[in-house]
Amino acid sequence: MARVYNFSAGPSMLPEKVLKTAQSELLEYGTSGQSVMEMSHRSPAFDAIIKETEASMRRVLNVPDNYKIGFFQGGATQQFAMVPLNFMTTGKADYIVTGNFSNLAAKEAKKFGEVNIIANSEDKNFTYIPDVKSLAYTPDASYIHICQNNTIFGTTYVDVPEVEGVPLVADMSSCICSKPVDVSKYGAIYFGVQKNIAPAGMAVAIIRDDLLGNAAANVPTMMNYQAIISKDSMYNTPPCWCIYMTGLVMKYLEEDIGGLANMEQINVKKAGILYDFLDSQSFFNNPVEKPYRSLMNVTFTSPNADLDKKFCAEAAEAGFVNLKGHRLVGGMRASIYNAMPTEGVEKLVDFMADFAKKNG
Amino acid sequence: MARVYNFSAGPSMLPEKVLKTAQSELLEYGTSGQSVMEMSHRSPAFDAIIKETEASMRRVLNVPDNYKIGFFQGGATQQFAMVPLNFMTTGKADYIVTGNFSNLAAKEAKKFGEVNIIANSEDKNFTYIPDVKSLAYTPDASYIHICQNNTIFGTTYVDVPEVEGVPLVADMSSCICSKPVDVSKYGAIYFGVQKNIAPAGMAVAIIRDDLLGNAAANVPTMMNYQAIISKDSMYNTPPCWCIYMTGLVMKYLEEDIGGLANMEQINVKKAGILYDFLDSQSFFNNPVEKPYRSLMNVTFTSPNADLDKKFCAEAAEAGFVNLKGHRLVGGMRASIYNAMPTEGVEKLVDFMADFAKKNG
Repeated sequence: MARVYNFSAGPSMLPEKVLKTAQSELLEYGTSGQSVMEMSHRSPAFDAIIKETEASMRRVLNVPDNYKIGFFQGGATQQFAMVPLNFMTTGKADYIVTGNFSNLAAKEAKKFGEVNIIANSEDKNFTYIPDVKSLAYTPDASYIHICQNNTIFGTTYVDVPEVEGVPLVADMSSCICSKPVDVSKYGAIYFGVQKNIAPAGMAVAIIRDDLLGNAAANVPTMMNYQAIISKDSMYNTPPCWCIYMTGLVMKYLEEDIGGLANMEQINVKKAGILYDFLDSQSFFNNPVEKPYRSLMNVTFTSPNADLDKKFCAEAAEAGFVNLKGHRLVGGMRASIYNAMPTEGVEKLVDFMADFAKKNG
Repeated sequence: MARVYNFSAGPSMLPEKVLKTAQSELLEYGTSGQSVMEMSHRSPAFDAIIKETEASMRRVLNVPDNYKIGFFQGGATQQFAMVPLNFMTTGKADYIVTGNFSNLAAKEAKKFGEVNIIANSEDKNFTYIPDVKSLAYTPDASYIHICQNNTIFGTTYVDVPEVEGVPLVADMSSCICSKPVDVSKYGAIYFGVQKNIAPAGMAVAIIRDDLLGNAAANVPTMMNYQAIISKDSMYNTPPCWCIYMTGLVMKYLEEDIGGLANMEQINVKKAGILYDFLDSQSFFNNPVEKPYRSLMNVTFTSPNADLDKKFCAEAAEAGFVNLKGHRLVGGMRASIYNAMPTEGVEKLVDFMADFAKKNG
């Protein structure tokens, strides 16, 4: 059958051009006579792959020289523990809860110290982001943690906390590379690659170098940022295939898209098509406060749960898959990451309009 | 160029048939319209993949019903911490050190409790395995830890410790699936998949169910066996591509090889070709005491370091790559995992004989 429009929240679509490159190189990478999946991680061929992947990510995200990039395993969930284990030097940290993953991050951090939930948007079912300028930050917090884009609830930060002397740590799993980011505003940024970059199986952390080296001696080696970063992400065998795929996507962003400023233009236009449609009618409803609407995850409901179910089933038949909303929210969610073609959103909107007409 | 014979210690060769299947399905898996790399881990298509991967591994390794199988990230190195964090209920454990990885496992475990090194074969540069029948095991040890096959030194256990009431925990990263294993002798078996099964990025643990559920409350979620296993290895997004590739290799072992008894026959014959050659001449030398020779990793030296270097360079030119020994040992090492064709070893032996003639 033909490839579908996959609106999954992650893992999610990859650029078809990248998949075709991976396919063509699958048995023999360059002149190595091997698949990347078979390559010793200590070989010159793989060394070139990992170095170029990191270098291209540095260029794409415009990462300042005083930040290190590390490749890890265990997804963002493992980062939820690594952040406090490595950065909670004062024994306390501030967390802003704006959805499921920021809540899980705070819960995990409580295992390792005092967690102050300085704001929580659960009062309105996570349909907004708290005003970061009016919060009572803890003066001696080791860091402030946010989840920059909330995959499940379809919200995103506009401004981020800026507190002198307290580093900001952000989970960017569902918005990384969707537009340019000013890395210098953050002490650390981390993300699972499986939403907007590569197949599942890797998390990346970008860390200001003065924050490294403070983990306690009994922290597990694989959870010690400095232990992994000081070995150029090869303390042990890294997830080589994910690194290779990440490199291909970075190359695609640089060469085919022309960088993140262009990617943002495409994404703003693409999300705009869906949000404009949602605002133009009353059959479907997006519950998010407008300033905080995510570029990447668009939630919406039909008039009732039965119609939601009918919509998802008919959409899947028509080649628009994984539109069912997360069980915590219900309704629908269209995750429209970088690799979702604009055409996919245009066709989805046509399908939605047609469905509304027939069922309204 | 043609595919090479890759003697890498890991990541390492994969069956060409499996690579071709992965290549053919790369853009569209079955009728899903998606790559496995793009698939939601909560989708029916991926659910079928992970369930069948686990089921086929259970059949291939003949895993008893009272053992759980979990898929993890972070490689065996992360398991080095997870084993004590989950199993060290008495605060102490016995470790047998027979090489680099068992030593690293013991070092990591020391972060979490009392580690008794009850035997160490470093006295003869790890060229043998201590007699497990004559060791002074700690009566109240939580477990006994071994590394079943030593990748770097080319040794393997013949007998394993059997102590009433003390579970045996084994790292089988470099010998898993090389021959049948009696899982019931072990409390837990773990392995990184990147040597004998799949691309790097996943570790598997097979755990007797009475050993689960004892981790302290402050253990990081991703290091808690029970937390992951109770969610069928989908607490968070798993390394889907590695799971898929593992499933393809399990299918290959079942359908193309006919199970691990057949695999063992092939491996014994294959390793025999190399060991018989080594024993038949005096130019190359294998330092390992004969009973403990590994089926998977064969170490050898030429008369001097200059000739070792020359050998590796000329071998690579001839299409036999990654034969350089680990820096801790020097010399050469041929890792001849399941996917190395017998023909690859036959041709290597011809090349070695020719090299010995020219340089002897």
